Amino acid sequence: MTINIALLGFGTVASGVPFLLKENGAKITAAANADIKIAKVLVKDEAEKNALLAEGKAYHFVTDIAEILNDASIDIVIELMGRIEPAKTFITKALQAKKHVVSANKDLLAVHGAELLAIARDNGVALYYEAAVAGGIPILRTLASAYQADKITKILAVANGTSNFMMTKMVDEGWTYDEALAEASRLGYAESDPTNDVDGIDAAYKMVILSQFAFGMTINFEDVRHEGIRHITPEDVTLAQKLGYVIKLVGEIVERESGIYAEVVPTFLPKNHQLATVNGVMNAVFVESIGIGEAMYYGPGAGQKPTATSVVADIIALAHGIVKGEKVAPFNNFARETVYAKKEDLLDKYYFAIETEDKTGQLLKLAELFEAENVSFGQVFQENLAENRASIAIISHQMDLNQFDSLVEKISALPGFTLRNTIKVI
Amino acid sequence: MTINIALLGFGTVASGVPFLLKENGAKITAAANADIKIAKVLVKDEAEKNALLAEGKAYHFVTDIAEILNDASIDIVIELMGRIEPAKTFITKALQAKKHVVSANKDLLAVHGAELLAIARDNGVALYYEAAVAGGIPILRTLASAYQADKITKILAVANGTSNFMMTKMVDEGWTYDEALAEASRLGYAESDPTNDVDGIDAAYKMVILSQFAFGMTINFEDVRHEGIRHITPEDVTLAQKLGYVIKLVGEIVERESGIYAEVVPTFLPKNHQLATVNGVMNAVFVESIGIGEAMYYGPGAGQKPTATSVVADIIALAHGIVKGEKVAPFNNFARETVYAKKEDLLDKYYFAIETEDKTGQLLKLAELFEAENVSFGQVFQENLAENRASIAIISHQMDLNQFDSLVEKISALPGFTLRNTIKVI
Repeated sequence: MTINIALLGFGTVASGVPFLLKENGAKITAAANADIKIAKVLVKDEAEKNALLAEGKAYHFVTDIAEILNDASIDIVIELMGRIEPAKTFITKALQAKKHVVSANKDLLAVHGAELLAIARDNGVALYYEAAVAGGIPILRTLASAYQADKITKILAVANGTSNFMMTKMVDEGWTYDEALAEASRLGYAESDPTNDVDGIDAAYKMVILSQFAFGMTINFEDVRHEGIRHITPEDVTLAQKLGYVIKLVGEIVERESGIYAEVVPTFLPKNHQLATVNGVMNAVFVESIGIGEAMYYGPGAGQKPTATSVVADIIALAHGIVKGEKVAPFNNFARETVYAKKEDLLDKYYFAIETEDKTGQLLKLAELFEAENVSFGQVFQENLAENRASIAIISHQMDLNQFDSLVEKISALPGFTLRNTIKVI
Repeated sequence: MTINIALLGFGTVASGVPFLLKENGAKITAAANADIKIAKVLVKDEAEKNALLAEGKAYHFVTDIAEILNDASIDIVIELMGRIEPAKTFITKALQAKKHVVSANKDLLAVHGAELLAIARDNGVALYYEAAVAGGIPILRTLASAYQADKITKILAVANGTSNFMMTKMVDEGWTYDEALAEASRLGYAESDPTNDVDGIDAAYKMVILSQFAFGMTINFEDVRHEGIRHITPEDVTLAQKLGYVIKLVGEIVERESGIYAEVVPTFLPKNHQLATVNGVMNAVFVESIGIGEAMYYGPGAGQKPTATSVVADIIALAHGIVKGEKVAPFNNFARETVYAKKEDLLDKYYFAIETEDKTGQLLKLAELFEAENVSFGQVFQENLAENRASIAIISHQMDLNQFDSLVEKISALPGFTLRNTIKVI
């Protein structure tokens, strides 16, 4: 049989879909047990339509979504427009028209996913979105299948290629944040407004989706603490190296006794940690579980072909159900009540970068502060700076979030001391 | 509903299955949409049965396979005995009794897999074996699902934990092969006869299975060239480091224009290659494809809980079909006619470790040999040894297998030169 799909948008990723359908045609047809045909493509307006036709793109372009919604021959709608609207409205209408939907729209799925999945369920269709997290890495499908027998305790993820490219340059080449951003922009990795990438927002969206697949819980985007890489200085990078670490922007989701917690923050990774070698625009998801133990899934986080490959894999998975004429399984079956962890259950080590006057007794004052909070030092590195100043880098032993907040407050209030930076240590 | 399973064998891995069914009971039941019950356990004899009962293992132990084959209530048979016989006979009979089978038996599946899969097909049941390759890494399921939309061009795998543990010690600690083997034996990683692990046989079995999932072709075990790590010396390890490489035992499967080729050989990996950081007993499969591009799947290659997790994931996948009362999909649908690559299509770089007299003109003689074969040098490193001898390490540019064989022959025949070792370079 033939399964008709409609593409919403014909940008870079979308045009990767016909590439794969052509290049791997026989394999895809055999896998789907059906021919996959691009029946219609929605474009913005007549101008875009004519431009694409002029380029020799021989598709049935339409400018009105209704031509797709009302076309009973279309089984699957592929949304690759990005942003919230009109994507959200179009996906909603497609699901209500009893069409399966494949999307790569992480912002939309992180914020409105639950609502859209409910609409899909109510209409007996499915919404798949492997490409929404870590582009080409089949991480969502893996969590939803291989880990059904397992219990995940922690996820660590390098989930944003742009900021990882920048951090890699800052670590390997000693570049400043501004130098790294300029190069990322020049190469087209960073958008004109890089906020989502460099402030951890994009990665935080991905943590919301990962939490649903890995822990069966839905963390609200607002509850994912996120902090970017803007304030990381070459001094921090150098100190990290001296202490045996590499700095990366890492997303973490953990389940403790009291519940679940997610954040995206700059993180000191031990040089021999598997995530520490994930460089450039590559992504990786490091999974800790009681069964498999430690595993890592590494690959491209974005790009036309990787993303299109995840989209077509979703199309094939949907095709299996369509061909059999039976209800298609939801993308993710794992759901529990969402319970958040207590602050005192969240134990981590931290790096404190402090500047003070170069005179005796200064380190003692800090030691007394930590002592008062019942937190001990792991590593301490002190060096003298110009103008009779000293730099003190401390890597603490584990403390909970309350202790951390209190320490930050007290150090900041300490006369003659400047708390230059704090970074989580794994 | 309840799905009854029978375990053949109750060794280390097998006892990990009840652990997961208990620890993740609710999640597994929800995922399988059925309760998974261990109905019967086959043990060797009355002695083993009584010993296990004495340990408080409260299962229905049987010593005759017929009690499982003739039990219509048993849906899935789990073979975790290892070795060829009686496993092969038991699996065959179970499939003929219309029971689905889950196995972790790589030796058996690599050599008799095609035959067993045909018996499964003829009896309308399925044979799943995620645990047979790279233990806890869900690599087979990933290749069979996420890569259905993609076209794989190359697989590189660190697929044997024992030899990787040994190579890691040889590289990081400068140990000799014998020292590393002694430690591997002491830790229980190496069996009393380590042949399968250290000579690449175990990894070659895995290449056979990987070739079926990644390329849809079945390479005969005899056609997988395999060479072990016994002959790797500290000199090779040191030279590799000086030239910027790490030595590991790597399995490779490639598809060239003329066909497919697989081998397991010691390999120089560039220090910044993702596989180069896979250390100790960990495994990893590095996949190159036209869609996703470069991806790597990293995790434990063996162990009770990782292996049992893969086994239970297979049980859950089978349960989906059993519950629906419909035919279960085969584990792998991708099959093409097997065509082997021509030797001249197999291009690689190689490391040549040569010893000769320390006098002028020796390197020139080698240069002339390479020139005659139309192969140029990439890197050359010469150092003087004791007793007026010199060590010459050459890393060549690409050559095909014919050129390589001919060069090896000519260098070995060159008066005054000793070809100490040759190793593939990636």
